[in-house]
Amino acid sequence: MTTPLTDLSHDDLSALHEQLSSEHAELVARGVRLDITRGKPSSAQLDLNADLLTMDVPAHAEDGQDIRNYGGKRGLPEIRRIFGELLGVDVDHIIAADNSSLSIMHDLAMYAVVHGIAGEKPWFGRNVKFIAPVPGYDRHFVICEHLGIEMIPVELGEHGPNVDEVARLAADPSVKGMWVVPMYANPNGVIYDEQTVRALMSMPAAPDFRIWWDNAYALHHLTDAEPAPLPVLQWAEEAGNPDRVFELASTSKITFAGDGVSFLASSKANLDWYFDHAGIRSIGPDKVNQMRHAKYLGDAEGVRKLMGAHRAILAPKFALVDDILTNRLGGRGVATWTHPSGGYFVTLDVMDGTAARVVSLAKEAGISLTPAGASHPLGHDPHDRTIRLAPSFPGMDELREAMEGVATCVLLAAADKLLTA
Amino acid sequence: MTTPLTDLSHDDLSALHEQLSSEHAELVARGVRLDITRGKPSSAQLDLNADLLTMDVPAHAEDGQDIRNYGGKRGLPEIRRIFGELLGVDVDHIIAADNSSLSIMHDLAMYAVVHGIAGEKPWFGRNVKFIAPVPGYDRHFVICEHLGIEMIPVELGEHGPNVDEVARLAADPSVKGMWVVPMYANPNGVIYDEQTVRALMSMPAAPDFRIWWDNAYALHHLTDAEPAPLPVLQWAEEAGNPDRVFELASTSKITFAGDGVSFLASSKANLDWYFDHAGIRSIGPDKVNQMRHAKYLGDAEGVRKLMGAHRAILAPKFALVDDILTNRLGGRGVATWTHPSGGYFVTLDVMDGTAARVVSLAKEAGISLTPAGASHPLGHDPHDRTIRLAPSFPGMDELREAMEGVATCVLLAAADKLLTA
Repeated sequence: MTTPLTDLSHDDLSALHEQLSSEHAELVARGVRLDITRGKPSSAQLDLNADLLTMDVPAHAEDGQDIRNYGGKRGLPEIRRIFGELLGVDVDHIIAADNSSLSIMHDLAMYAVVHGIAGEKPWFGRNVKFIAPVPGYDRHFVICEHLGIEMIPVELGEHGPNVDEVARLAADPSVKGMWVVPMYANPNGVIYDEQTVRALMSMPAAPDFRIWWDNAYALHHLTDAEPAPLPVLQWAEEAGNPDRVFELASTSKITFAGDGVSFLASSKANLDWYFDHAGIRSIGPDKVNQMRHAKYLGDAEGVRKLMGAHRAILAPKFALVDDILTNRLGGRGVATWTHPSGGYFVTLDVMDGTAARVVSLAKEAGISLTPAGASHPLGHDPHDRTIRLAPSFPGMDELREAMEGVATCVLLAAADKLLTA
Repeated sequence: MTTPLTDLSHDDLSALHEQLSSEHAELVARGVRLDITRGKPSSAQLDLNADLLTMDVPAHAEDGQDIRNYGGKRGLPEIRRIFGELLGVDVDHIIAADNSSLSIMHDLAMYAVVHGIAGEKPWFGRNVKFIAPVPGYDRHFVICEHLGIEMIPVELGEHGPNVDEVARLAADPSVKGMWVVPMYANPNGVIYDEQTVRALMSMPAAPDFRIWWDNAYALHHLTDAEPAPLPVLQWAEEAGNPDRVFELASTSKITFAGDGVSFLASSKANLDWYFDHAGIRSIGPDKVNQMRHAKYLGDAEGVRKLMGAHRAILAPKFALVDDILTNRLGGRGVATWTHPSGGYFVTLDVMDGTAARVVSLAKEAGISLTPAGASHPLGHDPHDRTIRLAPSFPGMDELREAMEGVATCVLLAAADKLLTA
């Protein structure tokens, strides 16, 4: 039956509602515990990197430094070279840090708040705003919220946000930043295109305006189309705004999540500014872990090969999610969803005003979803519409069960709403 | 000849000066490059931990968590238990973090600046002061300097600073912090005693006054006297100020420097406050490195045994420093120095007004010393007297050569000063 729910008679809708309620009650009774909240790699993916737990590491780097001692603030050339090549960044413009690019993003914002960027005033206590494409990544938004930075949501279209709207906002000197996940955006899988990015690089903005360019999924393809990361630092320079971008990346979804190596790529001026402050914080990164990663990954091609193995595990999960959503929700007029060609998420847009209800119904049935609203600043989705699905962590059977349950909840919440409208 | 320089006739002093000048010129001509600036472990010490570069690590912790994935913000119980026992802290009150306790200290200060402690106002833009026992650790002082926190130096006596003076300062509500290296203080090797610490715990102070209790050398004995770390968290609680202390430690001078595990021990309220902010920064620490360390160290006894091996390498270096200083400077009335029973440093106090000159003369001779003044806030030693010697890194031959050179520079600078007085 693929009649849109809105086309059903009141009696048919009531009957459907009854059937869905009973299906949901069965789910609740079954007492499952399924979790598709976060973009975590699965055990099978982590097992790909078993050698990282057993391999030997030499004591010295190629430049002779003893990796077991203090120092080397920029990180080992060995690992910077690999990720410089993968991201299309000169090795002099990329540094390797510890286990979390989120931490670098946070620290960059903290340094701006306390010390200011590029000789401008610190942001503390001032009316500072960030442009926040939505839907977006909740942990980005929480950094702003925590630091008292106001977020201005802009809709994330198929190739990025509307550049005229962004340029209009950036012209306000109190707008100091923007969050961008340029490839396979969290959560809707969008890939920013050249035209959009060129516009973001060239638009006038405050001298301390920066784009937090979180390239977390630059290599995380799900199809044969494997677009190269955009040369954003080069374009920033060409546009006469060489310091516009803080580019971030990490191996968290390449090797081990939270135990890998993170990267910051930027202009010389920005990296110097970063070390002016980060150099007070630390004498240097964990170079042993960087060396272990460099030896394990070998070279850029080694990383690409590994990403192929990840894809072989992940792509069937995304296909399964799409199959179930298509089978259960196709033609019912209650939901649309994305078909990402990379990254870690599917964005499910349900009937307006029902996302929180869907998440709540799923929770009753033992299925944990990312909280409704999480993909919007301050957790506020004005349409109560967007749900982020993270299919990576569960096995295929759990994922199937979870998605069937989610589909039931989506239909039930919609029928509920239509009946009480 | 052990006549004090001040007792020499002008002619004898001139003759000595000439001889020292010529010794120094020979040193300069020899063109050595020796470095005793920083408290870095030597290669021989790092080699003690060769197994850390080759050992296998299991994928799961004792509590079942997959250490290869996100989460576990408090750190692995395995490693927290070992260092909780060593520091005399309940495992619930100690968390394990990444590779740098300096970073934790910095972050604690940053969170206080931006967010405030214990519901008090953020420190940003306010007249905030720290008590800074001198001589002290330059990287502590630089954190304050960088954050615009004023430092009030107090003299570090044999068992800690004068508690009446500290209590008088702490009564000022703008005094918000104090730096303490309680065991084998950097750089003068002082061990705080119970009476001092009890007084620090019980003195009245601002609600957001905290002591940064940097127990960097808690296990770093150089003699058979191996005092246990003071139970400072317990004493703080007994004094009715359970939140007074942030205790820090790390394995940087136990395993690998900058590639180890760091620890924060504190009250529940302080740890909750820390995670309110650190939880925005990171999804969790590098648990693989923590597991590697837990497996390698085994238990508290394993750490103690390893520290014995470090001592066997370090103690002869400290003895050599003392021998050379005694032979060359004993009875000359131009210098005093410490005889630490642990830690990484010897403090050499030279004739007032000559420390900077000694460092400069040594530099000309290719011997790098910690800059004069580094052990004082803002790098300002009012007496221009204190030089920190770090004997750990060089081999015995280099150390001998460096110390002979330093002794020559100390004598030369003193003779210079006396002749021109």
